[in-house]
Amino acid sequence: MKLLVERIKQDGQALSEHVLKVDAFLNHQIDPELMQEIGKEFAARFADEGITKIVTIESSGIAPAVMAGLYLHVPVVFARKRKSLTLSEGLLTASVHSFTKNETNEISISKKYVAQDDRVLIIDDFLANGQAALGLIDIVEQSGANLAGIGIVIEKSFQDGAAKLKELGIRVESLAQIEALEGGKVLFKNDKVEELV
Amino acid sequence: MKLLVERIKQDGQALSEHVLKVDAFLNHQIDPELMQEIGKEFAARFADEGITKIVTIESSGIAPAVMAGLYLHVPVVFARKRKSLTLSEGLLTASVHSFTKNETNEISISKKYVAQDDRVLIIDDFLANGQAALGLIDIVEQSGANLAGIGIVIEKSFQDGAAKLKELGIRVESLAQIEALEGGKVLFKNDKVEELV
Repeated sequence: MKLLVERIKQDGQALSEHVLKVDAFLNHQIDPELMQEIGKEFAARFADEGITKIVTIESSGIAPAVMAGLYLHVPVVFARKRKSLTLSEGLLTASVHSFTKNETNEISISKKYVAQDDRVLIIDDFLANGQAALGLIDIVEQSGANLAGIGIVIEKSFQDGAAKLKELGIRVESLAQIEALEGGKVLFKNDKVEELV
Repeated sequence: MKLLVERIKQDGQALSEHVLKVDAFLNHQIDPELMQEIGKEFAARFADEGITKIVTIESSGIAPAVMAGLYLHVPVVFARKRKSLTLSEGLLTASVHSFTKNETNEISISKKYVAQDDRVLIIDDFLANGQAALGLIDIVEQSGANLAGIGIVIEKSFQDGAAKLKELGIRVESLAQIEALEGGKVLFKNDKVEELV
């Protein structure tokens, strides 16, 4: 997605060979118009999949997921990272380890909101080693719903999450694919193609 | 806002005299089309305020805030409830006690994203005792920015948050105002007016 790639080039910061900071427009400050275009793009890519529900995870998945839900005309459910007092029963849960934060969270979704007759699109802001995505997939499987695919805003293609998901036969649509972070620069997969468009 | 009041009547659950569960459309499952209408309503109410930035708090404030940002054409910044590794320096912080969860969180926003020349609209999903709002106001004041007002999706008017904020001279716009939760029923402020519309 050209608009997103341009924005990463302009405002993303490669803090190390592993960390891309995009808090200017995606995961701290959010650009609503960019999110709208991202939502339209996800909706277009999954238009023929009969999606009935979008599942994401708090907090940075919410903005792109809600915009995708707006254009697919389906509700969005976000997994919580710890239990809240008003959501204590009837939960589907999974454990997710974050290598960035070096901590394991229990993520959960109410059984009420993902059910057997749903066809689910999972959306998240980043795909790195795939831990969050695998946790969400686990929850969708527990619910008995059918998984249509995963929509990712930024894929770090140099980590193994995308490969793991494709091995499971899951459709992964990433709007920007990063090949490497080198010397403070962001190198995109198919970068020449992007620039010729 | 009639659409919101109708939705609370339809899908809200008064779990006790203090707890209203709206996880069917606002803070677990999210209805994107309702959020869009909420965003338009906030944008209309604050249209003449010269807003340059929206500030909210993760996670349930994000969806209404992003939709308001879309229609006001301004970026949204969400306060985080604990520090993350990639956002460690240059933070504005405040302490927020949650009576519902009986815990105190440090909330933080990067100094980069709220500055002296900003005119800020704070948006949140609920206003009860005002702790989250006061924490966000504290952060906005620390930044030197100017506060235009606060937009709330659901105000629990039987708790003292709205009164506290008005005493401080702050403009509060609540899209639904709940007078009481009694015997499993939700009673709205100005309910007769709503029903005559």
